[in-house]
Amino acid sequence: MSARVLIVDDLFPNVKLLETKLALEYFDTVAAMNGPDAIAICEKGLCDIVLLDVMMPGMDGFEVCRYLKNNPVTAHLPVVMVTALDQPSDRLRGLDAGADDFLTKPVDDTALFSRVRSLVRLKALTDELRSRALASRDYGIGDPLALAAAENGLDAKVLLIEDRRGAAERMATALGQNHTVTVEADPQQAMLVAAEGGFDCVMVSLDLEGFDGLRLCSQLRSLDRTRNVPLIMLAEPQDQGRIVRGLDFGVHDYLMRPVDRNELLARVRTQIRRKRFSDVLRGAVQASMQLAVTDGLTGLHNRRYLDNHLGTLFCDAASRQRPLAALILDIDRFKTINDTYGHEAGDEVLRTFAERIRLHTRTVDIVARYGGEEVVIILPDAGLVEAQAIAERIRARVEATAFDILRASRSVPVTVSIGVAVRDADDASPADMLKRADLALYRAKHAGRNRVEAQAA
Amino acid sequence: MSARVLIVDDLFPNVKLLETKLALEYFDTVAAMNGPDAIAICEKGLCDIVLLDVMMPGMDGFEVCRYLKNNPVTAHLPVVMVTALDQPSDRLRGLDAGADDFLTKPVDDTALFSRVRSLVRLKALTDELRSRALASRDYGIGDPLALAAAENGLDAKVLLIEDRRGAAERMATALGQNHTVTVEADPQQAMLVAAEGGFDCVMVSLDLEGFDGLRLCSQLRSLDRTRNVPLIMLAEPQDQGRIVRGLDFGVHDYLMRPVDRNELLARVRTQIRRKRFSDVLRGAVQASMQLAVTDGLTGLHNRRYLDNHLGTLFCDAASRQRPLAALILDIDRFKTINDTYGHEAGDEVLRTFAERIRLHTRTVDIVARYGGEEVVIILPDAGLVEAQAIAERIRARVEATAFDILRASRSVPVTVSIGVAVRDADDASPADMLKRADLALYRAKHAGRNRVEAQAA
Repeated sequence: MSARVLIVDDLFPNVKLLETKLALEYFDTVAAMNGPDAIAICEKGLCDIVLLDVMMPGMDGFEVCRYLKNNPVTAHLPVVMVTALDQPSDRLRGLDAGADDFLTKPVDDTALFSRVRSLVRLKALTDELRSRALASRDYGIGDPLALAAAENGLDAKVLLIEDRRGAAERMATALGQNHTVTVEADPQQAMLVAAEGGFDCVMVSLDLEGFDGLRLCSQLRSLDRTRNVPLIMLAEPQDQGRIVRGLDFGVHDYLMRPVDRNELLARVRTQIRRKRFSDVLRGAVQASMQLAVTDGLTGLHNRRYLDNHLGTLFCDAASRQRPLAALILDIDRFKTINDTYGHEAGDEVLRTFAERIRLHTRTVDIVARYGGEEVVIILPDAGLVEAQAIAERIRARVEATAFDILRASRSVPVTVSIGVAVRDADDASPADMLKRADLALYRAKHAGRNRVEAQAA
Repeated sequence: MSARVLIVDDLFPNVKLLETKLALEYFDTVAAMNGPDAIAICEKGLCDIVLLDVMMPGMDGFEVCRYLKNNPVTAHLPVVMVTALDQPSDRLRGLDAGADDFLTKPVDDTALFSRVRSLVRLKALTDELRSRALASRDYGIGDPLALAAAENGLDAKVLLIEDRRGAAERMATALGQNHTVTVEADPQQAMLVAAEGGFDCVMVSLDLEGFDGLRLCSQLRSLDRTRNVPLIMLAEPQDQGRIVRGLDFGVHDYLMRPVDRNELLARVRTQIRRKRFSDVLRGAVQASMQLAVTDGLTGLHNRRYLDNHLGTLFCDAASRQRPLAALILDIDRFKTINDTYGHEAGDEVLRTFAERIRLHTRTVDIVARYGGEEVVIILPDAGLVEAQAIAERIRARVEATAFDILRASRSVPVTVSIGVAVRDADDASPADMLKRADLALYRAKHAGRNRVEAQAA
């Protein structure tokens, strides 16, 4: 994936050197000579990845990284710290600041490019998701980015696929302080565990006895159920070739043995944050779509949902020659409640009404607020007798207990009238069935309310 | 990106050979020995790409490909036809059937792997989008996949970046029959044209005079405004290295010179279909999110949108010390219209009412159906005098022409009462302002309706 790389370094020759190298690899580059300029470029969305020098006058690289990773607008940008420092403690400070990797100057070109390519590709996979989530924010449906960036990367489920008992124990102990760790030594078994376990991060030893750990990684990246889970390879220094290969096909990160405890914690945490960031965005997009078919007051489906789905259910039932029933429910004298106790009390009654209905319907049923105090229920595979029984149960349940209103300071008796109809072989469309249910409801109202009436046989 | 590759071939040794090769490259494989089995695997979502033999008993590869590409559930899967045939006409039949590429046996491994990798990566970029679109279908908001798969790939805007006049003319003429073609010889100028032009496909010569066409490709893939546009490289046989490089960083396809006219048309069309497929999915996700904040009947925003945005507008206005106005509009004697002419007539009146309001509001205003026959308008930067003027204009516009109802078979006079209020420095929340507008509306009603009343000064 081609990409715009932001090079941040206060020394011009360093910038030039990296620019030249990256250009030869067909990356676009943009440069900043200090922290604030770098942040401004990131906030404007003008780059896809940041190569960040540590030692800069003013704001140093650690600060810049921390700022970018805690800012909802820039948290998704991969940051690679590049520095002449080579103390494990510096490395760790970088990772702790949220950096995705930490490379030491002079930078090995293969390592640099394979890392940049892998991070850019992983970013591209969530760019689409992020822009949908941004749109959901623009529509005023919460601020998923802020929520996602606030994720701390703790209390996760980690799967460690490692058959060296000593190493496995050491890592499990270290990770166990913040996370729940499952250790699995057998690669075949590990695939099953990974697919079922709902892990936030999976670590794979490349040196399993008699099995190529990289193949396990590739399978985990291929399977639907595991492809979104971050993968970290555990490698020996001589595994360089396989590391590059792994990064190329989508493994997220690696740790070199002997594994440094703090680096282990930092890298695992970074991956967990990254995954949860995507999960939050995905959830936000999903939720905002769900809102489109949900009634805001009662949480039932809305009329749009009913209109969209009823046709399909009706045709299905017709082609499979299965029954289909419709109930129309209307709260009796609802206007009186509103007029006597105010709109808020009316809303409370509607919410409680919805709750009681939910107790007597199945997940396959459609329960939709049709307007005002009217609810429509569609029951697949239900005949007239069954539908009447359900209607009667709901009617009785509504009547049985008075409804709390005005924050439970009062309660009012509520009753409901219900019209029932079933699909007829002669029906041209579901509207015919609904019309019969509506007529039945009309009869229930005129026969004194608080009744179930079914269509004429 | 690791992926599951479906190998379709009726000869077992061929399957085995490809399986072995792909496994060495860390791909997962699954095999089918005939067309129907292959289709079943694709429909179950068990693979990411298809390597398809042409000559099979029963359903041949062309048929399988056409079926997959026209089926909404499988249209997104890349298909590479692999065959011993080497007639340009076969190649073309494959591409015409919608194949993403056509490789000839014995297959060159580098070509095969770079192609499979590139196609799998491109697919991964839209997988997230596709699953969101699937969700939107599950919620009953149209069927974007069916719509997307029906796209024909014609009538597109194509940009051809080529400085050889003869070649450019030949290609422009061939493409011009189905598309609008822009030819640009200067690479710098081409970037500007590409960014502004809204093209469906861009073709880039790798052999521009004094300029590396591949660099242009990388820039086009990096820039926000062009990164989703399909790119096709025009290459000479000796460009193999740069072709692999280009595919690796995200170029979608290439054509070898001398360019075969029919292959040109087929490959361009495939790319256009692919792009439009994503565009339709993206649009569907966007639209379903928009529905969440839209009132189904009038197309105005709904109360959810108002509730989400009003707080922000209110705080903005307070911190910038700018005015902010609220109008509450209520159609006079709306119940009478409903009771006299029925609910459908009432709905027609509401829709026309919304249209007339839209004529007098700006895009920065919030116009939301608040419930029943009540609409709230929020006017940023508007003071009391201005808000009253707008309210008066709407009131007059509603009264001026009777409303068509019952499909224009009748018309009824309609009037509206409007309450106006502006943000006060003492207001703790926007609810205070709305309350004053509501009181003003109450006075308008009591003073005889069809009036604008503002809050007491």
